[in-house]
Amino acid sequence: MARASLSPLAISLGDPAGIGPEVIAKCWDHREEFGLPPFVAIGEGRSVAAVWDGPIEVVDDPRQADGAFDYALPLIQVPAAEADTPGHPSVAGAHCSLDALELAVGLARSGSAAAVVTGPVSKEQLYSIGFQHPGQTEFVAERCGIAAENAVMMLAGPTLRTVPVTTHLPLANVRERLTAGLIESRARATLRGLQRTFGLAEPRLAVAAFNPHAGEGGNLGREELDIIEPAIAALRAEGWRVTGPHPADTMFHGRARANYDAALCMYHDQALIPIKALHFEEAVNITLGLPIVRTAPDHGTAFDIAGQDRADERPMAAAIRLAAECAMLRAETA
Amino acid sequence: MARASLSPLAISLGDPAGIGPEVIAKCWDHREEFGLPPFVAIGEGRSVAAVWDGPIEVVDDPRQADGAFDYALPLIQVPAAEADTPGHPSVAGAHCSLDALELAVGLARSGSAAAVVTGPVSKEQLYSIGFQHPGQTEFVAERCGIAAENAVMMLAGPTLRTVPVTTHLPLANVRERLTAGLIESRARATLRGLQRTFGLAEPRLAVAAFNPHAGEGGNLGREELDIIEPAIAALRAEGWRVTGPHPADTMFHGRARANYDAALCMYHDQALIPIKALHFEEAVNITLGLPIVRTAPDHGTAFDIAGQDRADERPMAAAIRLAAECAMLRAETA
Repeated sequence: MARASLSPLAISLGDPAGIGPEVIAKCWDHREEFGLPPFVAIGEGRSVAAVWDGPIEVVDDPRQADGAFDYALPLIQVPAAEADTPGHPSVAGAHCSLDALELAVGLARSGSAAAVVTGPVSKEQLYSIGFQHPGQTEFVAERCGIAAENAVMMLAGPTLRTVPVTTHLPLANVRERLTAGLIESRARATLRGLQRTFGLAEPRLAVAAFNPHAGEGGNLGREELDIIEPAIAALRAEGWRVTGPHPADTMFHGRARANYDAALCMYHDQALIPIKALHFEEAVNITLGLPIVRTAPDHGTAFDIAGQDRADERPMAAAIRLAAECAMLRAETA
Repeated sequence: MARASLSPLAISLGDPAGIGPEVIAKCWDHREEFGLPPFVAIGEGRSVAAVWDGPIEVVDDPRQADGAFDYALPLIQVPAAEADTPGHPSVAGAHCSLDALELAVGLARSGSAAAVVTGPVSKEQLYSIGFQHPGQTEFVAERCGIAAENAVMMLAGPTLRTVPVTTHLPLANVRERLTAGLIESRARATLRGLQRTFGLAEPRLAVAAFNPHAGEGGNLGREELDIIEPAIAALRAEGWRVTGPHPADTMFHGRARANYDAALCMYHDQALIPIKALHFEEAVNITLGLPIVRTAPDHGTAFDIAGQDRADERPMAAAIRLAAECAMLRAETA
């Protein structure tokens, strides 16, 4: 009932040749079962029609989506120069996915949409058309006027939230990127995000170690002593509830997870291995530090199964649900 | 019933000031509930008596343990120069833990014990008395006349087995250690171990990538192209069932785990994060490539809770059970 007061959510379809159109359409099919609020899809309508037989209502504005949502999937048309075949990405599709993303962000910034959920894009395709950002997160941050380093990617599942300090770079390059300053800024953005977006007044952050056994006092690496511990000390001095550095292998079991609200991890796989091992179908990518709420399912375009009615819509449903919850929380506390 | 034909298992107590004595004694308490076969504890009897009120029967030989096991915890005494206080490790205790380990391995090599289960030692304490090995695994390998690189540490839980290619070294040093040859030798030892110790005729091995997203075709690192893929190709050419390199974050969820018998991981935390996130109380450390069966619970000495009756004996029970199963399997197929 409270949700009736939210504007519809804007959901970009992602790459039209990927599984984005299919899982978004399937979420509309199962909107009651999944408890999803009204949303409007944004992208090339032909990419939805190619993989789904349900009703589509083309609208111009998210406000029109509320009424249409009961009987059709509302869609704001973002035309592609050519219609893609599912599983066969194209330059035209990459441009379309970027246009849809930009429009979705704009609608959320203007308040027409309550939040943005982004469908999966192909980074290889985007790079081929000159896309300069590491991923959608950084693009969204830029469009919101936020420095990329202040936008934080969090993976959120039912019993675990993780934030990687470094993301898409070769593992061998993580060490040189890791500084106390970077850890502190990611930690602050995470803690503020837990307050603002998740409504936790005094959030608890557990910081992972970089080396096995947290470096064993320097025997297995000095990053804990030289970089991570000073960052934790600085954060504590500011009054934040921060613990660590914790050996990464013993911080993700059930009893350990109960001791913190989010885990700050030093590199991509350290954050993503545990969340996907535990919550593969329910892990949601949420960007903290933005003026808008933005979530995404934590999977890719899956071109290999696109158009075969095999894609699992549960991750997209989880992303929509979390976006609505966070948007509602922000609306209530604004 | 088949178990009656096995010799007792030899269990070294580990550091006398750690939780090893307590969890081993508690396993004897719950031997029927856990379905444990006869075993003999090896170490300083005073360290057990300090934390446990049950009956101890000092024996000279594992053969005497079979009869005693019904009414007392059989123990082969390995005296320490001084008795430790739980939680306060000493040089004398470190020497004792090493002597007990050596005796346990000798009993298994001679056939007097069916297998070895090792209690947790303190590496810091062992280093302080001149111990030169990275851990117990390498020590056991040497005492068995096996080159350390041919002894492989596997973490085994109910739904996942992982093997780290590199183990206890700083994460920043993993890259220089990683070669196609090392991956191949670890893979072969793992595959042979799955055959010999787990009775799998045609084992399936999934090899993890080193970089996020398996390097994205070279955009996020070249280790997959330059090192891991050639190793996999060589193993396949030998007829082994090997897949990968798999992005590490998407290979540990339930459906993915069903596709392989073990995952070969590039570094310590990549192997240990998923197994401990999923199977914290049941993960067992088992050494493959040895002439004997050797398992260990996958936890440390936990000096901070030693002597407080707070240690969880389930990991030790899982280690004893797996050792017995593997020893039985070897006896049947020998």
